[in-house]
Amino acid sequence: MNIRFKNARVLTMADGFNIIENAEVHVRGNKITYIGAADKKEDRTNHWHKTIDVKGNLLMPGFKNAHTHSAMTFLRTHADDMKLQDWLTKEVFPYEAKLTAEDIYYCTKLAVLEYLTSGITAICDMYFEQPTIAKATEESGMRCVQTGAISGSDDIQGKIRYLRNMYERLNNGNPLTTYKIGLHAEYTCSKELLEETAKLVNELKVPFYTHMSETKAEVEGCVERYGMPTIEYADSIGLFNYGGAIFHGVHVNDKEIEILKKRGVSVVTNPASNAKLASGIAPVERYMKEGINVAIGTDGPASNNCLDMFREMFLTTSLAKLREDDAAAVDANSVLYMATVGGAKALGLKDSDVLAAGKNADMIMIDLNQPNMRPINNITKNLVYSGSKTNVKMTMIDGKILYMDGKFNIGEDPEAIYSDVQNVIDSYRNGTR
Amino acid sequence: MNIRFKNARVLTMADGFNIIENAEVHVRGNKITYIGAADKKEDRTNHWHKTIDVKGNLLMPGFKNAHTHSAMTFLRTHADDMKLQDWLTKEVFPYEAKLTAEDIYYCTKLAVLEYLTSGITAICDMYFEQPTIAKATEESGMRCVQTGAISGSDDIQGKIRYLRNMYERLNNGNPLTTYKIGLHAEYTCSKELLEETAKLVNELKVPFYTHMSETKAEVEGCVERYGMPTIEYADSIGLFNYGGAIFHGVHVNDKEIEILKKRGVSVVTNPASNAKLASGIAPVERYMKEGINVAIGTDGPASNNCLDMFREMFLTTSLAKLREDDAAAVDANSVLYMATVGGAKALGLKDSDVLAAGKNADMIMIDLNQPNMRPINNITKNLVYSGSKTNVKMTMIDGKILYMDGKFNIGEDPEAIYSDVQNVIDSYRNGTR
Repeated sequence: MNIRFKNARVLTMADGFNIIENAEVHVRGNKITYIGAADKKEDRTNHWHKTIDVKGNLLMPGFKNAHTHSAMTFLRTHADDMKLQDWLTKEVFPYEAKLTAEDIYYCTKLAVLEYLTSGITAICDMYFEQPTIAKATEESGMRCVQTGAISGSDDIQGKIRYLRNMYERLNNGNPLTTYKIGLHAEYTCSKELLEETAKLVNELKVPFYTHMSETKAEVEGCVERYGMPTIEYADSIGLFNYGGAIFHGVHVNDKEIEILKKRGVSVVTNPASNAKLASGIAPVERYMKEGINVAIGTDGPASNNCLDMFREMFLTTSLAKLREDDAAAVDANSVLYMATVGGAKALGLKDSDVLAAGKNADMIMIDLNQPNMRPINNITKNLVYSGSKTNVKMTMIDGKILYMDGKFNIGEDPEAIYSDVQNVIDSYRNGTR
Repeated sequence: MNIRFKNARVLTMADGFNIIENAEVHVRGNKITYIGAADKKEDRTNHWHKTIDVKGNLLMPGFKNAHTHSAMTFLRTHADDMKLQDWLTKEVFPYEAKLTAEDIYYCTKLAVLEYLTSGITAICDMYFEQPTIAKATEESGMRCVQTGAISGSDDIQGKIRYLRNMYERLNNGNPLTTYKIGLHAEYTCSKELLEETAKLVNELKVPFYTHMSETKAEVEGCVERYGMPTIEYADSIGLFNYGGAIFHGVHVNDKEIEILKKRGVSVVTNPASNAKLASGIAPVERYMKEGINVAIGTDGPASNNCLDMFREMFLTTSLAKLREDDAAAVDANSVLYMATVGGAKALGLKDSDVLAAGKNADMIMIDLNQPNMRPINNITKNLVYSGSKTNVKMTMIDGKILYMDGKFNIGEDPEAIYSDVQNVIDSYRNGTR
């Protein structure tokens, strides 16, 4: 479909934080083909399937939710206000053990609906039943980078084969889907599994993704096990030889920051989850100063509990300000960069980072005609400090409008998805599972 | 107008956090007259101007925004990412000095629009030109408690007369409006002004409201000036003899907590503002344990920058969890109480606290039919952890529906308000003021 957007403000993110006024954006198929002043010749010679009058609202790149566990929607509000280890071992792991691929299919689709309402055009998902997740996201039209989620100490070679298999299968199918080698976390994997994963990373020469340095206890445990903290240990066995990203990165030391820098490893910060689970505040200001790429994630809906990049953006800056005792720390524009371009960088989505001719049409429309966006003054800062899901008027992924004016277009009735996920949690609650 | 709501889930907040299923709520004029099972007799004998099918969504008391400076909307994103004192003295005070009553009228109305989108049915406003603020909020239908905002060292008796005058005038007019004796802050008032205000409080035998213990520097300054911290000093001159509330309450000591308890002073926490300005995290868990009433405020739109109680609720619990290093600190239901009943208590709005027959019809409808509210499991926790402005389907104040399905009904075109406020900030920017 060829769609022409006219009368738009455009924040391309390709030119600092400048906003182009009175512009057009042209989308042909899944690509952006033009951004600039209204072009009469272009109008005459081209057929548009649709022309959308943006009425002075803002077009910008969609948000990249760089860490999530989509299918955990079924556990939303199942257990809150609990300490992390109790919550994981008593309320999450036992429930996940009984989850079927079909459950994961519907629970992932529920998350996709929520991502669209928040202007999220790409996610980095870590969960089980990965072909099913790919099916759910591809059918919905969501761009999804999956990462390995292996853990444990048994059947090491089986797990490595699974990673290798997923890596081949999910990097050669639908253009919306990619796959990264990764594992759940140092503390949930045996030494052998960690080392075998490192071998695979080095054989394939690919970046590596994992939960890392989320809690103090996790890092202390690693020091006990291997005589060094998590990032240092992972690097010592070669896991970061080709870069990648760590999810969380809350508790790190100077030497580890040097490793992240040297290896080009991104940090995906998850401020809502880290606050809600009392894990701590990541040193985002320090990462920025060291030139480490920072991306932002929501983490899963059982630990957050919502999948909203606006809340994450406000938390990224405001928690940094508290941590540094400095209201000037991590300014709003830097946060907007992390939530868009930084995310694309961390996930290897180089064609979906900014708005420009030739890039994927992963674009959102922000409604400036609502009280929280007025007066119109510093629009980019306003997105971070005052913006909200209520301002997301449209979410387009790969050239398709999947959400507009509160209506979804993902090939399935939202009510059916709500009902399926309700059945999942109800079956646990009423003991029929 | 008599309005019947049917097929509702109802969280009255009068019975813990229980939710009544399949209920009706009847509103006659500005009062709730009935909450309970569908009543056929009631249906037959009464004329309804309107029947609203709630379709299983949630009716609950509106949020009380217990501290704000509504008219500061014009300074939204004017200056961010700055240290508090620089921001106040260089970017706020000089701009406010040139503000007219007419500006304040429109800027307040812009804030009212935003409050309605977030389900806020009452505010506690502190600003200048107080009769104008009352005019703007009354015309819009917003319930507004104003507090004194005096400061300085000159014309002491003039300022006290102003307080007395406002107290009489704004407590005897429109039922939506009340007025409380208060002053800006200890650090912006001379000793004489503080003492004369205390005399007035004791003469009128009324509660007292002020910014207090927001920053460490403020408290240290008070110790230098008077040999004791802010709350202790204020109490020593009799300001808290009839209770009241302090806005912020971030930096307090044990003795001061005893004073708040003894005097029945509420604390209004403003987590977004305190984080964004790096002021610190209030000891909300401690206040709760001591039985001190806690309410929640957004603070003004120049320091937050949005007027959204959902964001404040999430921050209240998640910052407390970080502060206490305990994911079980300040649970979600307690936060929901603070945002509704706690707020009403702090502001003396005893007829607008819960939903019950005889209470004011200050009520909101929460849309549960959106992805962030699914599955339906623990609804009250979900409001705090996952809820958003997008879920506010209706805001009713004093029996009038002022906001429904994204449309405002405040007797003025939102576009006209946007345009007026734009003119205010533009006149500063282009030098015509």
